[in-house]
Amino acid sequence: MSLGYRLHYAPDNASLIVRLALGELRVPYRTVLVDRRVRAQKSPAYLAINPAGLIPVLETPDGPVFETGAILLWLADRHGALVPAPGDPGRAAALKWLFYLSNTLHPALRMIFYPDQYAGADPGMQAMLRRHMQGETARHLDVLERAACDAPVLFSGARPTVLGLYLGPGLRWAALYPAGGAGWFDLARWPALAALARDLEARDSTRAAIAAEGLGERPFTAPQPPDPPEGAAL
Amino acid sequence: MSLGYRLHYAPDNASLIVRLALGELRVPYRTVLVDRRVRAQKSPAYLAINPAGLIPVLETPDGPVFETGAILLWLADRHGALVPAPGDPGRAAALKWLFYLSNTLHPALRMIFYPDQYAGADPGMQAMLRRHMQGETARHLDVLERAACDAPVLFSGARPTVLGLYLGPGLRWAALYPAGGAGWFDLARWPALAALARDLEARDSTRAAIAAEGLGERPFTAPQPPDPPEGAAL
Repeated sequence: MSLGYRLHYAPDNASLIVRLALGELRVPYRTVLVDRRVRAQKSPAYLAINPAGLIPVLETPDGPVFETGAILLWLADRHGALVPAPGDPGRAAALKWLFYLSNTLHPALRMIFYPDQYAGADPGMQAMLRRHMQGETARHLDVLERAACDAPVLFSGARPTVLGLYLGPGLRWAALYPAGGAGWFDLARWPALAALARDLEARDSTRAAIAAEGLGERPFTAPQPPDPPEGAAL
Repeated sequence: MSLGYRLHYAPDNASLIVRLALGELRVPYRTVLVDRRVRAQKSPAYLAINPAGLIPVLETPDGPVFETGAILLWLADRHGALVPAPGDPGRAAALKWLFYLSNTLHPALRMIFYPDQYAGADPGMQAMLRRHMQGETARHLDVLERAACDAPVLFSGARPTVLGLYLGPGLRWAALYPAGGAGWFDLARWPALAALARDLEARDSTRAAIAAEGLGERPFTAPQPPDPPEGAAL
């Protein structure tokens, strides 16, 4: 059941999170580059596997899966790692934070990176949305910081669950994007999340992602733009 | 394991989705009204069970669970209904659409209902965000309409999965809120979703929710404001 995975990705995109999970699970997979420069994610062929037109998609023996959170959870359950199993008393906490990352932190970051998709074409409007959502994102990270202090196993970077694999790249993008406009973000404000990011950097899965996508030596705690910079975040 | 559930709810809020699920699963539960008029969801006692300060929370023997999608999935897995089990070939599709509802449709609706939480205090800015997101929401519903046509079992209203239970209230709120400003929404544009809503209305779980929260006779296809109107959507 671990064969036949194909990850549709773009460098430093949300597909990075799935790449980390596949690496942690040590399952083989192939990659398919989605060329965002020509908006390949909106092509008919791509929309046939993800009608939402977003990256990533993981093709599996059970069909194409999209939505980062869904892919993470499906892979983790399928391979019996990275998340407490159904029936485990820790399952509820893992799910609530996974959905929180997926539906609160991730959309907030998307609004910062792509304000045009939410606010329309007006630049002043985009700037206001971005600024407001930077403040909101800081509050979301405050919530996650307290959660990480309360549940260090669930938010470990050294033995990551799906939460750490989702958060590491999220912290990276918050620090990097938009280029030149991420001064609001200071990882030192969230020491438990910083520790998660630091520990995650030492993992084999991260080293493999660095090699594949050119993410630099400290991709989560001191991120640099990808080299080659083929893609942009999310 | 079905005892000891306590649902923190407000009428016609996202807790409605969880109420429907509990009804479908025929498990007993108690309710706790969260008084939004005094912002009880931001009180220290409430933040202790949901640090994000949002409704709903379901207290369970495994601790408090928040995030509507997480509660739905946890309940469905725990009681072995409403979603394909882990390992079932249909699991992947159920998860991807559940996350899509949670992280794409639901936040888009929230931006329409509560633009101040995203755009800040400027009324013009709020109006622009709302208008843009109404267009985006229509596109999300187009995507879901095609999914419902392609996977009618997964999107059934007569034998609902977690997806139908999430979508029915979503369609209700899109048609109702903001009061006087939902003219963009016409359920007839999405016939498969309309059929889901119609079939869901006939379920015992819906009848129980109507009785408990005063939702009117056709809460998903021809919604009226709740009576008594103690709360507002989401």
